[in-house]
Amino acid sequence: MTRPIAIIGGTGPLGMGLALRWARAGEAIIIGSREAERAQRAAAAIRERAGGQAQVSGMENAAACAAADILMLTVPFEGQAALIKKLKSSMTAGSILIDATVPLATAVAGRASRTLGVWQGSAAQQAAELVPDEVSVVAAFHNVSADLLNGDSPLDCDVIVCSDDPDAAQLTRELAAKIPGVRALDGGKLENARIVEQITALLIGLNVRHKGHAGIRITGLPPAAYR
Amino acid sequence: MTRPIAIIGGTGPLGMGLALRWARAGEAIIIGSREAERAQRAAAAIRERAGGQAQVSGMENAAACAAADILMLTVPFEGQAALIKKLKSSMTAGSILIDATVPLATAVAGRASRTLGVWQGSAAQQAAELVPDEVSVVAAFHNVSADLLNGDSPLDCDVIVCSDDPDAAQLTRELAAKIPGVRALDGGKLENARIVEQITALLIGLNVRHKGHAGIRITGLPPAAYR
Repeated sequence: MTRPIAIIGGTGPLGMGLALRWARAGEAIIIGSREAERAQRAAAAIRERAGGQAQVSGMENAAACAAADILMLTVPFEGQAALIKKLKSSMTAGSILIDATVPLATAVAGRASRTLGVWQGSAAQQAAELVPDEVSVVAAFHNVSADLLNGDSPLDCDVIVCSDDPDAAQLTRELAAKIPGVRALDGGKLENARIVEQITALLIGLNVRHKGHAGIRITGLPPAAYR
Repeated sequence: MTRPIAIIGGTGPLGMGLALRWARAGEAIIIGSREAERAQRAAAAIRERAGGQAQVSGMENAAACAAADILMLTVPFEGQAALIKKLKSSMTAGSILIDATVPLATAVAGRASRTLGVWQGSAAQQAAELVPDEVSVVAAFHNVSADLLNGDSPLDCDVIVCSDDPDAAQLTRELAAKIPGVRALDGGKLENARIVEQITALLIGLNVRHKGHAGIRITGLPPAAYR
């Protein structure tokens, strides 16, 4: 596999967890960070944990962006728009930006169990407004516990994938399904990301209340719905 | 058990399904409808299906409301506020109103996979603004498939219960857990109902896309979180 996945803003818990799981699944990973050195340290840590022939490198965000066609964005909401604007010129035509941003009220010192309203409808739609026309945005991985991703056990949750680009959505579902225990679901158009993003705030509330690592499973659908 | 549950606007699929499951669990049910006769026919149908000593009667909505301290509201969003205003004077102090209303865009001829913004934050908070002060509002049962409730098999889903009244929330969780296969979860304050309501629109989209009866399970929490 020469197609790398760049995890932009990838040194936080979600980015590191995805990097670990995908590296173990044989994907080539580029961790992006504001500082190349920090990214390289994170990459070394993932290589050590993933073991074997894990292909994980670290670069400054713009370089990571330019080196990959699959971009996984894992930054807090307060940094999302500014970072996309900064990286826009580094994105190559035909790239896919997978956005996991949740507009938590923590962005304005509010509670993590509450969200902010986003004018475009969702953080993912805000991203879609900011990327170049030739870049497809997919919303996914909002509801996966970063703590559990950073562990070694299979997960017990589904990933709902929303996009207006069916091919980009399918690729993202395939990547999700590479994480042990995860099933991927077609959540429909990108506009539906607003609901998937909000679910994270509900899960955070449940985690606080019950000291857990909540995720969701969708029941009641035929087996063909999951992949 | 002499404490009856009045299912207000109870002749629709969700109301009938809850009536059937609770009647089978030994609860006394009053089905409420705009017309007493229609409510009585619905009650007879539930009695026949529930069998045994099922206690199910039918009354006009206001009479049903006056006869019970547990009110389960199962009406479309477009009818919710008007019905609560009409029934307000029939609600007895100390009653619990369990609201399952989802502000689907179908209320204004939009799609069932989209929702309307509600000024108060959620349909449940709109209900809370309209009921008498001495009535507690609980939000629950939004995400349960009405089709599956009306069947005979155990369900495979969780019910997230939101309320500002801990006792009312606990009673509602107990009622939810009487439905075979359902686990009930404390979803926190009533304001969180906005997220639980929206999930229904997402599930409807999944049902349309995959021809299923989608529900949700929350994973990753300790066993004590469910009841």
